[in-house]
Amino acid sequence: MSAASSGSLVVVGTGPGKAELMTPATAAAVAEATDLVGYAPYLDRIASIRPNQQRHASDNRVEIDRARLALSLAASGKKVVVVSGGDPGIFAMAAAVFEALEQGDPAWRALDIRVEPGVTAMLAAAAEVGAPLGGDFCAISLSDNLKSWSTIERRLIAAAEADFVIALYNPASKARPHQLRQAFELLRRLKAAETPVLMIRAAGTAEARVLAWTLGAADAGQADMRTLVIVGSSTTRQVGRWIYTPRGERGAN
Amino acid sequence: MSAASSGSLVVVGTGPGKAELMTPATAAAVAEATDLVGYAPYLDRIASIRPNQQRHASDNRVEIDRARLALSLAASGKKVVVVSGGDPGIFAMAAAVFEALEQGDPAWRALDIRVEPGVTAMLAAAAEVGAPLGGDFCAISLSDNLKSWSTIERRLIAAAEADFVIALYNPASKARPHQLRQAFELLRRLKAAETPVLMIRAAGTAEARVLAWTLGAADAGQADMRTLVIVGSSTTRQVGRWIYTPRGERGAN
Repeated sequence: MSAASSGSLVVVGTGPGKAELMTPATAAAVAEATDLVGYAPYLDRIASIRPNQQRHASDNRVEIDRARLALSLAASGKKVVVVSGGDPGIFAMAAAVFEALEQGDPAWRALDIRVEPGVTAMLAAAAEVGAPLGGDFCAISLSDNLKSWSTIERRLIAAAEADFVIALYNPASKARPHQLRQAFELLRRLKAAETPVLMIRAAGTAEARVLAWTLGAADAGQADMRTLVIVGSSTTRQVGRWIYTPRGERGAN
Repeated sequence: MSAASSGSLVVVGTGPGKAELMTPATAAAVAEATDLVGYAPYLDRIASIRPNQQRHASDNRVEIDRARLALSLAASGKKVVVVSGGDPGIFAMAAAVFEALEQGDPAWRALDIRVEPGVTAMLAAAAEVGAPLGGDFCAISLSDNLKSWSTIERRLIAAAEADFVIALYNPASKARPHQLRQAFELLRRLKAAETPVLMIRAAGTAEARVLAWTLGAADAGQADMRTLVIVGSSTTRQVGRWIYTPRGERGAN
């Protein structure tokens, strides 16, 4: 119990990649850690790891095991930082930490736990192209590791019905090459063919690359795990080299 | 034309309030500006404004006029930074800048324009309470300045149908005290009474305050302009003192 009260766990996000997009609050939490837990490429973004900081790198699978490790380290008195990309609360480690907390040792609930917000991928992706998320929007992960494809379809249909701008996280992976194609096929039945579709790869890094399509022409095969896909609403449009969604359906006043 | 090519415009967001949540990229853009344009309380967050930087503070109305001013300053050769709160692309100034660009002098389209992402309010609000945005979610502004209330209702209905977590921006103002009450009344017909509802005021500042309710009991009168409201999905739940949404409907694996 005394160990549990001296340890701590902070869940942070590095932002999309560039060091200049990591918040000072996150950098400070990392600097104070004794132990850093995370997917290896995200830990690699932390240039400042000191020799006396223990690094617990893992592959990208089984987030819940990583969360349990982090909680047990904190319970043993360590100052643990769990490192996500982007924002830790958006399709990242924070939810896994609370799942592990709910399932784990009840004593863990007394731990000092904090979440530090960060710049999530869709914000960096939107900034690369203009302001496509300028109106009401939704964010859907196309990963069906933990939810059924029928749930994803139901959400895409509702998003089209609401005329939300749609941000698609995890649009494709080696294990799921067909998800984005299926999503586009569904959306083509519900939305105009000229709806702007953006594939922003490695947003917020020096390697950022944008592919701008219409929904009718978008090639799902061009997206990979590092791509964020944005499907416009009925008002999303181009001005100059930018894509944006006006703030309201009545347009500017 | 030479003036247009030497000026520049960067649209930034300060993050939710605390200096430690502003990105270094945004701080650098601000440091390089000759002119800062924005709503006065957001400009006040920039502690580092130098005497030789021109401050163009305004009230919170008519964002499009502020955007036009910024574009015309950039066209006259100034290095302009437009300052929003949060992230500039989420219910903030970036969309207004592109609206003004579309309507304004065609020469403005040759300007050097850039958007820097930031930590938007819902991310800071979510971090204050745990990970309520851990699943698929949507963000809706309840302001009906620029869109009709029927559009907002249609989006709330679709969001309930999709079982999205719902982040509500601009839930209330002096001009619109009844919007949030109407939204809750609508959602109560579509979602379970025990659905968690969070009102997070001044998230990401030293004055952050959280009110946790159920949808059945939530008092809309407790929200103001500085409040972000999160309405859970069917799986959003409490563990210890935290609220979170599991990553998928199948729960942890």
